[in-house]
Amino acid sequence: MPARKRMIKKVNQRTVAKRSVKKDYNKLAMEAHKKMQGKLEVHSKGKLESRDDWSTMYTPGVGAVSAHLYKKPQDARKYTVKRNSVAVVSDGSAVLGLGNIGAVASLPVMEGKCAIFKEMADIDAWPIVLNTQNEDEIVETVKRIAPGFGGINLEDIGAPKCFAVEEKLKKALDIPVMHDDQHGTAIVVLAGLINAAKVVKKDISKLRVVIVGAGAAGRAIALLLAKAGIKEIIVTDSKGIIYDGRPGLVAYKKDLAKVTNQMAMRGEVLDAVTGADVVVGVSGPGTITKHHIEVMADKAIVFALANPIPEIKPDDAKAGGAMVVATGRSDYPNQVNNSLAFPGIFRGALDKGVKEITDNMKLAAAKSIAGMVKKPTADKIIPGVMEPGLVEKVARAIKK
Amino acid sequence: MPARKRMIKKVNQRTVAKRSVKKDYNKLAMEAHKKMQGKLEVHSKGKLESRDDWSTMYTPGVGAVSAHLYKKPQDARKYTVKRNSVAVVSDGSAVLGLGNIGAVASLPVMEGKCAIFKEMADIDAWPIVLNTQNEDEIVETVKRIAPGFGGINLEDIGAPKCFAVEEKLKKALDIPVMHDDQHGTAIVVLAGLINAAKVVKKDISKLRVVIVGAGAAGRAIALLLAKAGIKEIIVTDSKGIIYDGRPGLVAYKKDLAKVTNQMAMRGEVLDAVTGADVVVGVSGPGTITKHHIEVMADKAIVFALANPIPEIKPDDAKAGGAMVVATGRSDYPNQVNNSLAFPGIFRGALDKGVKEITDNMKLAAAKSIAGMVKKPTADKIIPGVMEPGLVEKVARAIKK
Repeated sequence: MPARKRMIKKVNQRTVAKRSVKKDYNKLAMEAHKKMQGKLEVHSKGKLESRDDWSTMYTPGVGAVSAHLYKKPQDARKYTVKRNSVAVVSDGSAVLGLGNIGAVASLPVMEGKCAIFKEMADIDAWPIVLNTQNEDEIVETVKRIAPGFGGINLEDIGAPKCFAVEEKLKKALDIPVMHDDQHGTAIVVLAGLINAAKVVKKDISKLRVVIVGAGAAGRAIALLLAKAGIKEIIVTDSKGIIYDGRPGLVAYKKDLAKVTNQMAMRGEVLDAVTGADVVVGVSGPGTITKHHIEVMADKAIVFALANPIPEIKPDDAKAGGAMVVATGRSDYPNQVNNSLAFPGIFRGALDKGVKEITDNMKLAAAKSIAGMVKKPTADKIIPGVMEPGLVEKVARAIKK
Repeated sequence: MPARKRMIKKVNQRTVAKRSVKKDYNKLAMEAHKKMQGKLEVHSKGKLESRDDWSTMYTPGVGAVSAHLYKKPQDARKYTVKRNSVAVVSDGSAVLGLGNIGAVASLPVMEGKCAIFKEMADIDAWPIVLNTQNEDEIVETVKRIAPGFGGINLEDIGAPKCFAVEEKLKKALDIPVMHDDQHGTAIVVLAGLINAAKVVKKDISKLRVVIVGAGAAGRAIALLLAKAGIKEIIVTDSKGIIYDGRPGLVAYKKDLAKVTNQMAMRGEVLDAVTGADVVVGVSGPGTITKHHIEVMADKAIVFALANPIPEIKPDDAKAGGAMVVATGRSDYPNQVNNSLAFPGIFRGALDKGVKEITDNMKLAAAKSIAGMVKKPTADKIIPGVMEPGLVEKVARAIKK
């Protein structure tokens, strides 16, 4: 079977798998998307109903604004869409649940992201889907279109390319750049873990955490948890535990081996989770089993984040002895949802005019999200995306 | 004085010059822009108020739409913003009245253009201002961001670069690409000329037309008038009449010399306009004098389109014997305004899903704009931008 056909079959199978979700959201989504013909629209803040409107919104008046910005480009934040705009950029190479489907097919996802930006944080985001999957070309393109935007949200770009793309853009641009699949996920996982530690009455810095999956999200989670002061972190990939010196490690996994797995543990997932306090799955269905949970420490915390099918079903995790279980799904308690983080993060970054989203800002954002839950319980370690005040709270954390 | 300072001084002088316009639109525009902080905003067509909303607008439902588009990318026009979106792309190298002010400073102009797209034609346009002025890089960048857009409006890109940029993009992309400074202007000039010929009772195909200025607009006007069947067209630049074999001609002017000036006339503007029926100024203030008008044929037609200061003041042109005078300004009769053309052109192109805006479409658009004026007079050869039915009429012409 040619690669493209294989991929289509795979996509179909996954689509069918999704249909097992209670409501037929696939059907609802197809109908809604067909009706909307694009989920976004651009509005003009000013009318064009009189000659004065035209002369103010456009020529000749607009020339004065352009002449001013020629002298003071930094005032673009006062006079233009740069104040409040974010480009949601993807090459469609790693779309949630679908894989490498390319630019056009990724567009509905990026539009959805832009809709969330608007509805949650009143940010004007527009999707930019790229007709290239080459690392340098992605970087070049984003640099070239950056002047009109106040921030760049990278989305669904595959690992390891996404790491270099983000690093290079952060260095090159004076506006915030964030690959949400990495940092959004990491921030919400940390938020959940702060509260989960309270529920199980363990000191978060002393938790032993195993991350199953070493892609974009796995790496970012490991790095952020380390920044948060968690010392014992082990990451596994399809070949087992990642350790310093493991033969054949790609560059970023080598780096990861240096900042995780201080005990230089080797072996399989089963070895890693034995006695661990926390397991975070960011891989795919079936990579975490009930037996894995059984060998963990008492009051185990399980984040099974594969979407739409988690690594292990919450019921099985509970049966294995887990005390707190989180997933990426909205139909179970404790949904680890990036939308808890990115709208507030960009809201704060745009308001404050920060040039970069730093690790300290990410830690502050995680704490502020955790703080939304006043009395954490096993079934409520994370706030819902629709809880009032969430975006404002995260934005305030970024601004501080 | 360093180039940048010189440029700022020049920009300032032009700004001051603009202040002589009756109302102080500069001040009004600065205030309005400061208040609006960007003239555009993005709206979500769907709400995110319930879990069902989220699951339909975003995951998991959106995955079905993406999977569908992976199999049928051509359906992007049914399900995504590609249906109705246009990128307004500029490198800021030739901004109306200001020159090469670069990306950020050009942003207010591009936003204004997007506002016009929305208010006139309900098109969702977003400004993309480029951090490069290199021809190949502009082409590359637009190609890479094209998948999410239904059309590309190139704007304020300097000549001769703009010709190659547009040609290359038209060849590379399967969505309509139009450099409005060229074709928008040419279409409206032709529309005006159709009615002006009626007013002076001359056969349009027999008019002798002199175009003063051989930049982006001058070239496009010459080519479209030729397509419309006008045989005697002479173009002049700062060195006088352009003729086949003139030493030192750049490539595009060589091409222009081959399709214009069939009589192989040489000399200055004065030579060109002597006995001419029409003069079209697309250069700068002062390049057309009262004396030039005096030596033209009876019932001369004068389009003095430099903005904000026309090549010759309408009163002086009339005093020189002109019967019909048009300018680019809204405070004189007969405003040659690109906004008469581009909204309807893209409306028609998006509705019909055309891959290219052809010369025949441009001719049809010009005729439809001319047709908006039922009884042309010397002071009314062109409709106003706010005339009801304009966009629909132009769109219909494109669709046919």
